[in-house]
Amino acid sequence: MSLIVQKYGGSSVATPEKIKSVARRIIATKEEGNRVVVVVSAMGDTTDSLIELANRVSSNPPEREVDQLISTGEQISVAVMAMAINDMGHEAISMTGAQAGFETDSSHTKAKIVKIKPGKIVEELKKGKIVIVAGFQGIDVYENVTTLGRGGSDTTAVALAAVLKADACEIYTDVDGVYTADPRIVTNARKIDEIEYEEMLEMASLGARVMQSRSIEFASKYGVRIHVRSSFKQDEGTFIVKEAKSMMEKVVIRGVTVDKEQAKVTILHVPDRPGIAATIFKALAGNNINLHMILQNVSEEGYTDVSFTVMKADLKKARATTESILDEIGARSVTIDDDIAQVSVVGTGMKSHSGIAADMFGTLAREKVNIEMISTSEIKISCVVKKEDADRAARSLHATFVEVEDKREAND
Amino acid sequence: MSLIVQKYGGSSVATPEKIKSVARRIIATKEEGNRVVVVVSAMGDTTDSLIELANRVSSNPPEREVDQLISTGEQISVAVMAMAINDMGHEAISMTGAQAGFETDSSHTKAKIVKIKPGKIVEELKKGKIVIVAGFQGIDVYENVTTLGRGGSDTTAVALAAVLKADACEIYTDVDGVYTADPRIVTNARKIDEIEYEEMLEMASLGARVMQSRSIEFASKYGVRIHVRSSFKQDEGTFIVKEAKSMMEKVVIRGVTVDKEQAKVTILHVPDRPGIAATIFKALAGNNINLHMILQNVSEEGYTDVSFTVMKADLKKARATTESILDEIGARSVTIDDDIAQVSVVGTGMKSHSGIAADMFGTLAREKVNIEMISTSEIKISCVVKKEDADRAARSLHATFVEVEDKREAND
Repeated sequence: MSLIVQKYGGSSVATPEKIKSVARRIIATKEEGNRVVVVVSAMGDTTDSLIELANRVSSNPPEREVDQLISTGEQISVAVMAMAINDMGHEAISMTGAQAGFETDSSHTKAKIVKIKPGKIVEELKKGKIVIVAGFQGIDVYENVTTLGRGGSDTTAVALAAVLKADACEIYTDVDGVYTADPRIVTNARKIDEIEYEEMLEMASLGARVMQSRSIEFASKYGVRIHVRSSFKQDEGTFIVKEAKSMMEKVVIRGVTVDKEQAKVTILHVPDRPGIAATIFKALAGNNINLHMILQNVSEEGYTDVSFTVMKADLKKARATTESILDEIGARSVTIDDDIAQVSVVGTGMKSHSGIAADMFGTLAREKVNIEMISTSEIKISCVVKKEDADRAARSLHATFVEVEDKREAND
Repeated sequence: MSLIVQKYGGSSVATPEKIKSVARRIIATKEEGNRVVVVVSAMGDTTDSLIELANRVSSNPPEREVDQLISTGEQISVAVMAMAINDMGHEAISMTGAQAGFETDSSHTKAKIVKIKPGKIVEELKKGKIVIVAGFQGIDVYENVTTLGRGGSDTTAVALAAVLKADACEIYTDVDGVYTADPRIVTNARKIDEIEYEEMLEMASLGARVMQSRSIEFASKYGVRIHVRSSFKQDEGTFIVKEAKSMMEKVVIRGVTVDKEQAKVTILHVPDRPGIAATIFKALAGNNINLHMILQNVSEEGYTDVSFTVMKADLKKARATTESILDEIGARSVTIDDDIAQVSVVGTGMKSHSGIAADMFGTLAREKVNIEMISTSEIKISCVVKKEDADRAARSLHATFVEVEDKREAND
């Protein structure tokens, strides 16, 4: 008898009708002879509504109370899911994070799981029940309710799969799986059957929204094989694994991503002296601004320009911070460009293949796409381009790296 | 330094604005130099909305899951209340029933408090914090969330006041206190300064809606002095106490109540044999129908009529039950009268005063109110009358027993 952990996101349980539909899917899994543990997020936009309520009584609500408040969202959805399943003639029991044994540290709103005591879950599974666990939450040693932060329900599911040694960890979502590119941009994009943790991590941080990085890191650490699939279809989705079995040698690039949520900040005429960069990036880090890409021009006559990209949400803060240190570093001025996008190719196959960068730049040159910044890692190459060029760039890169490979594979 | 337990009902915390207003009131109490523990109900009609949600996925939701679901209502309101107080510059911490140490039995949706471990509350009070406790809820020994049933938040407050040996237990509500009669019916009704537990219990069960019987029983058992008062005014309300100090000997009748929520069922032509009544009332009890008043006519030629009153909500069930046993008991038919009301006078002073019944019947006779049924206890007399006569009956009884006493007292 297999043990399957399933996770359903907020959009899959947004209404009573959707909850009933998910309940039927859970029951089908149970009736196939599996033991089933289900992690559920808060219904639809419940969490946002609760945060709005908090903001109406407080300009700066204490994080402990925020957790006490928003954790009710998942408590509601697990209770209602258990009711729906029971109403269909199967036994289900709901559990809060505390009841499910999730102990976390005390970093409210972004707690880390310290340990899981799955005794109650195991006990109820033994009784033949379907166990419905509230995602995203736990308690600390003082019995304060905590939440795990963004993507927390995915982490709950992956952690449960690890500790229960589940045979499968299925993440249900409103898309079919992970795609070689965003199908809204690249019409030839296709679903990926298998993707490696490393690749998924890069793609998640480069704009692919299917899963949060943190849960993938967790899965990678504990070797949990994740199956991302659609709540609304029966087809298999994408497996996220340590090492993709299929065509290991052949697939060089797993996917192409486009991120339009970034902006570029340039500090002009910066004296090219040791310590200047440190001053700039320390000031930015001190204001909790995450940088994505950094570029320093070749120095001319002792001066250089320093550019970096940040999330658009941080742009105002980044501008103010850099302007406040202009005098200190002896630079001239700050310019902003939010009309950019970052286009990347990702694939662990790059580790053993040279020439990918050259192919990428060649493809972009043919498309007359100007490259403003470049950043590379062992398994990805990212280019900052003008926003208007981004979709065209992604389509041409997808044709060069994914579609050509697909054809070659088909011909083998 | 006094310790004050306050309880605010759902209508007092129905909106963010009302929550802020209550927060200011709590802070004022704290600033007067008191330690403050506050019990809060769910905001407005949250509980009803949650039950509606349950009904949309299940025709008969398991009670454990109902508790898991509806307990979120109070968890939301305590978190938001703590946020509001913190935003006003005072330290507050919210607690669920579990965190506050409420252990109950496992009778979901109507759990009884087994024990309270107030350690965490005491600890936070020592740190100078205002403690906000979720009313109406606890956990059983298996860590299942339980709820205490109707009036549960009042019970939470009274129980906390008992276990913390509080100096005051203030129940805030949308009325000024307990009245000698419903002011909407009897314009001369006045607020009662002090009322005894026994009297309050009778008045609650006879239609006065201020507090639920169960919390008063609890207060009586542990000698908790309750102060029922308005959330919106500063005036003192009504103290519910073991023995009213003032004018003990003089006040015979504390108040007059009218209950229009009952209906009368009459079984006609019942053979007057031993065991027949037992058959009837066993059948009704078996269907969870609570009877309020029972009347058996004088027997004529071996037959009698049996009448009883039930809550209107139970009327359909009561009719079906009695009709189903007509053949068994050999009775003729069942008639229903839902055009009735029960008018009562209540007062512990009756114990040492005779002649109240005579005065009551005399008053009603002068008003040409026909009495259909009579029921008495040591501290109340109730009459069932036609519904159209009920308000007039209440006004005349209030004039006879309350207003006359008030004048006598004023003349002393």
